[in-house]
Amino acid sequence: MIEPRRNNPPPIISLTTDFGEKDGYVGTMRGVILSICPRAILTDLSHDIPPQDIRTAAFVLYQAFSYYPPYTVHCVVVDPGVGSKRRAIAVRTSHGIFVGPDNGVLSMVLTASNIDVNEAVTLINPNYQLPNVSATFHGRDIFAPAAAHIANGIPLNKLGPPAINLVHLDFDTQPKDDICRVMHIDRFGNLILNITIDDIDDPGRVSFTIGNQTIKSLSHTFADVEQGHLLAFAGSLRNHIEIAIRNGNAARELGVQVGDVVKIIYSDLEA
Amino acid sequence: MIEPRRNNPPPIISLTTDFGEKDGYVGTMRGVILSICPRAILTDLSHDIPPQDIRTAAFVLYQAFSYYPPYTVHCVVVDPGVGSKRRAIAVRTSHGIFVGPDNGVLSMVLTASNIDVNEAVTLINPNYQLPNVSATFHGRDIFAPAAAHIANGIPLNKLGPPAINLVHLDFDTQPKDDICRVMHIDRFGNLILNITIDDIDDPGRVSFTIGNQTIKSLSHTFADVEQGHLLAFAGSLRNHIEIAIRNGNAARELGVQVGDVVKIIYSDLEA
Amino acid sequence: MIEPRRNNPPPIISLTTDFGEKDGYVGTMRGVILSICPRAILTDLSHDIPPQDIRTAAFVLYQAFSYYPPYTVHCVVVDPGVGSKRRAIAVRTSHGIFVGPDNGVLSMVLTASNIDVNEAVTLINPNYQLPNVSATFHGRDIFAPAAAHIANGIPLNKLGPPAINLVHLDFDTQPKDDICRVMHIDRFGNLILNITIDDIDDPGRVSFTIGNQTIKSLSHTFADVEQGHLLAFAGSLRNHIEIAIRNGNAARELGVQVGDVVKIIYSDLEA
Repeated sequence: MIEPRRNNPPPIISLTTDFGEKDGYVGTMRGVILSICPRAILTDLSHDIPPQDIRTAAFVLYQAFSYYPPYTVHCVVVDPGVGSKRRAIAVRTSHGIFVGPDNGVLSMVLTASNIDVNEAVTLINPNYQLPNVSATFHGRDIFAPAAAHIANGIPLNKLGPPAINLVHLDFDTQPKDDICRVMHIDRFGNLILNITIDDIDDPGRVSFTIGNQTIKSLSHTFADVEQGHLLAFAGSLRNHIEIAIRNGNAARELGVQVGDVVKIIYSDLEA
Repeated sequence: MIEPRRNNPPPIISLTTDFGEKDGYVGTMRGVILSICPRAILTDLSHDIPPQDIRTAAFVLYQAFSYYPPYTVHCVVVDPGVGSKRRAIAVRTSHGIFVGPDNGVLSMVLTASNIDVNEAVTLINPNYQLPNVSATFHGRDIFAPAAAHIANGIPLNKLGPPAINLVHLDFDTQPKDDICRVMHIDRFGNLILNITIDDIDDPGRVSFTIGNQTIKSLSHTFADVEQGHLLAFAGSLRNHIEIAIRNGNAARELGVQVGDVVKIIYSDLEA
Repeated sequence: MIEPRRNNPPPIISLTTDFGEKDGYVGTMRGVILSICPRAILTDLSHDIPPQDIRTAAFVLYQAFSYYPPYTVHCVVVDPGVGSKRRAIAVRTSHGIFVGPDNGVLSMVLTASNIDVNEAVTLINPNYQLPNVSATFHGRDIFAPAAAHIANGIPLNKLGPPAINLVHLDFDTQPKDDICRVMHIDRFGNLILNITIDDIDDPGRVSFTIGNQTIKSLSHTFADVEQGHLLAFAGSLRNHIEIAIRNGNAARELGVQVGDVVKIIYSDLEA
């Protein structure tokens, strides 16, 4: 259930797209939203998602959503299937309402351990779309209007019929045996792994091997190692392990990409 | 005439510049605006306009303005002539008030078919500028204050005398005979042409030749062709024709630039 | 003293980081702030500060702060020492409240001629931090909550004890004898020098030598020289001298970097 909103704060709509800022596409969506819901506070998660990179968009949403008020409407438009038969959906959860294409971009959020999914609908009611919906810019014509009407308090079931069997993508967010993977690489070149501190049996004995480099222990933070040295630590994202270089770029130094394997090794205490 | 604003919504000011985000120049303009008009909702169309690229700024504004409420103030600062005798202007239209340099950046909007121009003034009243106007940052010293004062409800004629004979740039927005041109290339590498579906005599027989590639028919959307294939379709911008590669980058693959020629050919039905 | 706020305008929080926009880190901070202070107007100075570049962040803040209302909270997160013993601080001044790491990023602002520092505290009260503060993302866990609580009107002394002996970095903002330096290079490749028009004894006789180029006089603005020509002028930032190429990129053409030397020469009027 969504928490009651104290003092009637203005509605919040977050935007996440792969549109960049150059062409004004996001700016156009903002105009559509403010035309329908002039009180909305607009905020941006990212518009620098690599073109059509559903996985990165899923990750950005996953790392941010729980820091927003639960009445926030998160509008996500990374939509390589625009104009095809993929559905446009809105999903009401215990921690936000999510609007976007039904292409798996919401999978990471909707399967998060701290979220309950309450309702999902297919956005087909033309009363809550712009007139003359284009075949290629549903961010403007369908998703932005839906987000704005929901922010205005329109119940989801007015926007369309229930959506069942949402597309689920497995983003490999869990480690398997002694293998984990690079789940995301951030701007600083830090590697966020698909393993959390809670998945590690004995943090005092763990080491990580990536390529031909081994990190022999967990650190607390950057300052525990010298400038330019590799470290691994329980990071800021729900205790996922990160591999980084203090004041350096680990991804570039190690030549690593998203999906690459990291081996988990427990040293023998007897040795 | 500007539509009456129901329920007194907060004023909206959109910003479009070639300033990028690195230096904080746009952030400074936001401070000036919020100092004068604390209720303003600030929104961005683009700050990634290539430096001094009036044409791209004109296009971004053109594709976005009609999606904003008609009381929006659009402040545009792409201003290679700053400090010269070019005028600073504000133009009131049926669909927004535009503030910027009189260098043609507003031409595409002001000649749009769905807009009426009601009033234009030259921004010379120092009461509505910052003290000590610099020679090189009129975005901060003249345009941002003007936009904020207008958003506060100051009538345009207080800001300066009527501006006549505004600079007009011809951005080649119309096709000529069987030749059209690439009008804009977006982040995805899609080519937006200066021809709309309404300009095409017989959409069932049309094909497009660009470089040594020919696209033999109009599609509805990306999903009509295989991944990596070229297509042409009536796009989301007022039915302008776009050429794209499904999940690819047409501009890069074809080596195309803004202004390049696309030939329009009608196939012989008898053949 | 902070000016009284007329008509109770909404609080303003500006954000400056080196986080970029790709990963959603700034978007996460925005969520934290709106959760605590739903009325806040959020604005961005820059998120394109080069990673860990304290100097550029200091400059961006310095050039922008005085254009914001004095009740603005400026939250700055360029924090290479995150997780070390560097302090987190908030500083109340005559022209804004500044929140950030105590690593010198505020030095340029706090020593500005037009600012009085009234109070500084160390942000250690956990009641004004997120639960479970991470070791690596204090922007989200400490700085954003502090900025939001301050915007809500919490007095600084509730957030922690007085902070004395703040870290001071000398950013070489003054010329020395006949030598000045490039203080900042902006997006257009313009060079902002650490010398103002007021530091120049005889503006009518001054010339500037950088590398093997000499600029023999001060211009008023770009339009005073031909396209592609070098010029020097008293710029928009507090009269600091700038070197630029009209409609070109001086930094690229001259191969100049921040910190490079520019010689000041006074010509002999008799010669």
